[in-house]
Amino acid sequence: MIQDGKKRVILENVKPSVDNGKYPIKRVPGESVTVLADVFADGHDELAVVLKYKPVAQAAWNEAPMRHLGNDRWEAEFTVDEQSIYLYQVTGWIDAYASWRKGIRKKLDAGQDVAIDIKAGLELIMQAVKRAGGADAQRLGDLASQIDSMQDVARATLQATSDEVGLLMDQYPDRTSATAGNEFMVTVEPQLALYSTWYELFPRSCTDDPSRHGTFKDCEIQLTRIAGMGFNVVYFPPIHPIGRKNRKGRNNAVVSQPGDPGSPWAIGSEKGGHKSVNPHLGTMQDFEDLVAAARKLNIEIALDLAYQCAPDHPYVSEHPEWFRKRPDGSIQYAENPPKKYEDIVPFDFECDDWQAMWRELKSIVDFWIGKGIRVFRVDNPHTKAMRFWEWMIASVKKEHPEVLFLAEAFTRPKLMQHLAKIGFSQSYTYFTWRNAKWELEHYLTELTRSDLRDYFRPNFWPNTPDILPEFIQYGGRPAFVLRLALAATLASNYGIYGPAYELCQREAIPNKEEYADSEKYEIIKWDWNRQDSLSDFITRINQIRAENPALQTTWNVRFFETDNEFLLFYAKATPDLSNVVFVIANLDPFHTQSGWVSVPFEELNIPHNQTCLVHDLISDNKYIWQSSRNYIELEPAKLPVHIFKVNRRLKREHDFDYYF
Amino acid sequence: MIQDGKKRVILENVKPSVDNGKYPIKRVPGESVTVLADVFADGHDELAVVLKYKPVAQAAWNEAPMRHLGNDRWEAEFTVDEQSIYLYQVTGWIDAYASWRKGIRKKLDAGQDVAIDIKAGLELIMQAVKRAGGADAQRLGDLASQIDSMQDVARATLQATSDEVGLLMDQYPDRTSATAGNEFMVTVEPQLALYSTWYELFPRSCTDDPSRHGTFKDCEIQLTRIAGMGFNVVYFPPIHPIGRKNRKGRNNAVVSQPGDPGSPWAIGSEKGGHKSVNPHLGTMQDFEDLVAAARKLNIEIALDLAYQCAPDHPYVSEHPEWFRKRPDGSIQYAENPPKKYEDIVPFDFECDDWQAMWRELKSIVDFWIGKGIRVFRVDNPHTKAMRFWEWMIASVKKEHPEVLFLAEAFTRPKLMQHLAKIGFSQSYTYFTWRNAKWELEHYLTELTRSDLRDYFRPNFWPNTPDILPEFIQYGGRPAFVLRLALAATLASNYGIYGPAYELCQREAIPNKEEYADSEKYEIIKWDWNRQDSLSDFITRINQIRAENPALQTTWNVRFFETDNEFLLFYAKATPDLSNVVFVIANLDPFHTQSGWVSVPFEELNIPHNQTCLVHDLISDNKYIWQSSRNYIELEPAKLPVHIFKVNRRLKREHDFDYYF
Repeated sequence: MIQDGKKRVILENVKPSVDNGKYPIKRVPGESVTVLADVFADGHDELAVVLKYKPVAQAAWNEAPMRHLGNDRWEAEFTVDEQSIYLYQVTGWIDAYASWRKGIRKKLDAGQDVAIDIKAGLELIMQAVKRAGGADAQRLGDLASQIDSMQDVARATLQATSDEVGLLMDQYPDRTSATAGNEFMVTVEPQLALYSTWYELFPRSCTDDPSRHGTFKDCEIQLTRIAGMGFNVVYFPPIHPIGRKNRKGRNNAVVSQPGDPGSPWAIGSEKGGHKSVNPHLGTMQDFEDLVAAARKLNIEIALDLAYQCAPDHPYVSEHPEWFRKRPDGSIQYAENPPKKYEDIVPFDFECDDWQAMWRELKSIVDFWIGKGIRVFRVDNPHTKAMRFWEWMIASVKKEHPEVLFLAEAFTRPKLMQHLAKIGFSQSYTYFTWRNAKWELEHYLTELTRSDLRDYFRPNFWPNTPDILPEFIQYGGRPAFVLRLALAATLASNYGIYGPAYELCQREAIPNKEEYADSEKYEIIKWDWNRQDSLSDFITRINQIRAENPALQTTWNVRFFETDNEFLLFYAKATPDLSNVVFVIANLDPFHTQSGWVSVPFEELNIPHNQTCLVHDLISDNKYIWQSSRNYIELEPAKLPVHIFKVNRRLKREHDFDYYF
Repeated sequence: MIQDGKKRVILENVKPSVDNGKYPIKRVPGESVTVLADVFADGHDELAVVLKYKPVAQAAWNEAPMRHLGNDRWEAEFTVDEQSIYLYQVTGWIDAYASWRKGIRKKLDAGQDVAIDIKAGLELIMQAVKRAGGADAQRLGDLASQIDSMQDVARATLQATSDEVGLLMDQYPDRTSATAGNEFMVTVEPQLALYSTWYELFPRSCTDDPSRHGTFKDCEIQLTRIAGMGFNVVYFPPIHPIGRKNRKGRNNAVVSQPGDPGSPWAIGSEKGGHKSVNPHLGTMQDFEDLVAAARKLNIEIALDLAYQCAPDHPYVSEHPEWFRKRPDGSIQYAENPPKKYEDIVPFDFECDDWQAMWRELKSIVDFWIGKGIRVFRVDNPHTKAMRFWEWMIASVKKEHPEVLFLAEAFTRPKLMQHLAKIGFSQSYTYFTWRNAKWELEHYLTELTRSDLRDYFRPNFWPNTPDILPEFIQYGGRPAFVLRLALAATLASNYGIYGPAYELCQREAIPNKEEYADSEKYEIIKWDWNRQDSLSDFITRINQIRAENPALQTTWNVRFFETDNEFLLFYAKATPDLSNVVFVIANLDPFHTQSGWVSVPFEELNIPHNQTCLVHDLISDNKYIWQSSRNYIELEPAKLPVHIFKVNRRLKREHDFDYYF
């Protein structure tokens, strides 16, 4: 027979939850979790429902009463403060006192005799006296005696249902038959997980003389420049020794020429593997110095975690059992037929020695954490076993909850979502190819208004070393300006493959979205002083992000109407509306577009008879919007986007009374 | 460390499932279950995914291969045959042979050397030889030898990737690292759970002389009449002794007059309780005879399971611990303040002796099953503990899977849904108050296209003894005709509070949806020969249901456009389109309405240059529809509804060749 047959409260459909609680939701300190649940019972009794929550290490639960929203849906919220795992749980019970109070009041209103009902209420109060201690028990007992001694039933009812009695009764409920729901988890990660600004840089090209390989020491100069532009994560492609065997030449040539540096993703040679640095970049000490220098600039160095080997990686000879062998005894290189990647051999996640291999792969992360690294950009996680990531990330975060992993998976939606579920802190997204207004609105709505919102933190990249999108190839500098402004204001995490983006590099391999003369296979001399550099613009955008808290989260984006399909209009605001930003972008990089936008006065609590000041934070122009419909005209070559800071209220005459 | 690290396949989001598999889905024999799941793995390998299913008592699983629908969603279906619990489960694994086959073909197409790849394929084939037995192992081995001996690599590839090899390889996959999902349950109930036609009847009024109480013997005459109208469930309000204490008089009077029979829901007196019959109705033997007579007419007698007592029920004195006491020592009667039901005392589901009480309540069901009852209409289940129902229904169905329970809960959506989740076979619905076109379309879409479809079987009632809806109060006979036709064709389960509906009884208590002079409190003499009786119409409608399998399920309803807000148009069809029914109803009982309807020629596989015959099964009129737009005119007083049987194709000249 069922246990606890007296539990009458039913709990269902708790949100947020990822796969019914199998995986945690994600937050950063200061973010809130709004919990919803269906809670009901048979009959007409009143329920009491509370949200319980706590950091996992804390013994006692915190509690917040849940509000009934109607249709048996209940809601409450809590804010997470510490970087830790939190638990939350919904608990509900029949509130005997509140049920009694509702009934006796209705009876009294209907003129019915309630003499016996009063006695029933007194019984409930006396039971609470037993549960309460000290002064509260004393006071409740006194109140009960008063009520008991009253001759006038109506007066007794008023007293027994008074706020004072109610508040005391709420504190000492009978929870013996409470129904507790499942416990759900929240992973609280550092602020950087939600608000980060990434610059991808090949250290090899940090050199004034492209015949000379750039070094970690050279990077220090760049770091200062990049910090000045407002970035706080600098991500390096792999810094390890590069394989000699089957090394790729320039432009992905199958045979390299002497002096070609090879792809940094072909990791490992006789000089070492994933725990070594490429001697051309310097020494391990140089690297550690660089990480320290970066931290002084408030920059995290993000390393590339690429779990794959060049054929001459020490692992291949030391642990041949971790790789797939071909029938001729050779190790199977990476391939996606008919494409071949002969400079890379993948790990075999179906090998019998998977446990030792998993431990070794995790030890690479631990090694670099030991060198001061806190952020990893993970290369192609969708081509390695999902269960490995789940175990590895959980194991690392148990000791180092501050460590973040960005999933570089540009693949099918379910796979990208699963990687986020199993622990990746941030994810690359399809933003890279979402250009039309409907695409952007639809995609951002999916990211911020579906269940994804609770576990998939988007990081928007308008380009990467692997992807030079057609939109910026064809759209030129206005397209670079536009796409950066969109990435930086739609998502609180964004990044660029820095030098190429800054300098509007757009030479592509014909009919491909790939860079010609890619830095992946050669050292490039970047001309930082190019006339058309976006450096100042990027600096300004990152300043705007830093100064406007509304832009430091992704979840608050809201789209509003315009009457031109090229004009995209969205707003972001802090919950208290103390910071409100409007972004209006001309998505057509070729033509001036104009039209009318509808400003959500009501949502901003702006009375319709008032006006608002909008201050363009890029151009520094100021406009007065006198009604909710306003005219916009954006010329792409001049500036394809407004980022307005909204002053919700223009002062009116009577506001100046104070001064006169 | 995680177990089974080599399992690379991920399984998520299996549908259908009720609360993630916590509760079973429902079916009747012959219905299919279409199972969907997200299944994927890292990398580019091919997957094999199967749906496993079986009756719970069967040792071996049946398997059906799942089809990839795109976006990592897989689908397969199975049909349930026996009245039992079924299990289903999704299992997926990396298909090494299929992955290899895809790769080698691409390489061959790209002109690459595949000499070593052939050998890798042979290794896979030889592994399958070991898993296969007998003739298949022999044949696969022979094929492998042939391939191995071929000089021409292209020929060897064709042979190794041939259909013959592929089919054999598919039979002997390597499942050692397969991922198996959770097991989900299906409760397969009798056909009657899906297709039933209910007539509610107070045996007390089965008498020609209202001064005399009707008896079970009198009911036999009525049963023949009701069977003739095409009903197969006759539901009796409680047939037990009625309490004397606080008995209600006519029209719910608080004080009854001598001779008043009282409400049958006030169960129990010194004459007995839930396991006794009201002596006015006859003896237990009379009742058993009636059940047997009904079964000969293909009618199930449904009993009312009302778990509540009159104050003089034997339980109240024998088990006072099962009832709530008031402070004055009296037993608490039922109330929903300020409403009082002094003739009824509810069980206290929070009492300490709940286990004994649950067992006694279940024994009532067992008792009547022993008397031949298979269908229970459960009174107000939403006012008794949910956990009790879950336990009771599961316990009863373990021994008697043929027994059905209809939940009479007209309450909040979540509560009604929960009752269905925890085991009720059928549920009353909001149909009773859904009259407008948008309401009906919206509600039927919710019932048949949301998750409800898998566990909530609607039973549509246009009236009950408790509810005389305004629509039929005001709309008169045309409204009665309309609402019955809608109930009977929208839902495959429908029922009426029979005599009152048949005879268009519509005298209400002013401004209430309650019958004046309700049969709940008195014996009524029904005039079966009234001029306006719906008897013939109901008979015809039930015949149409019996003759058209498309109307014997609820799940197939589809709505189509009309250009008049009063014209509702829906179609039902068998999966093979061998039976197609169109229903077009004028929802305005007061005025003739006309308009154009759009016929879904494409969905019915009717070529646009053809025509279809539509045969009105009520009026017997026939129409030729020559295009997908057709004119409809419905006069409520004449007939507010068409029920067309569709002949999809009008014979054409060349079809007659045969005859000449």
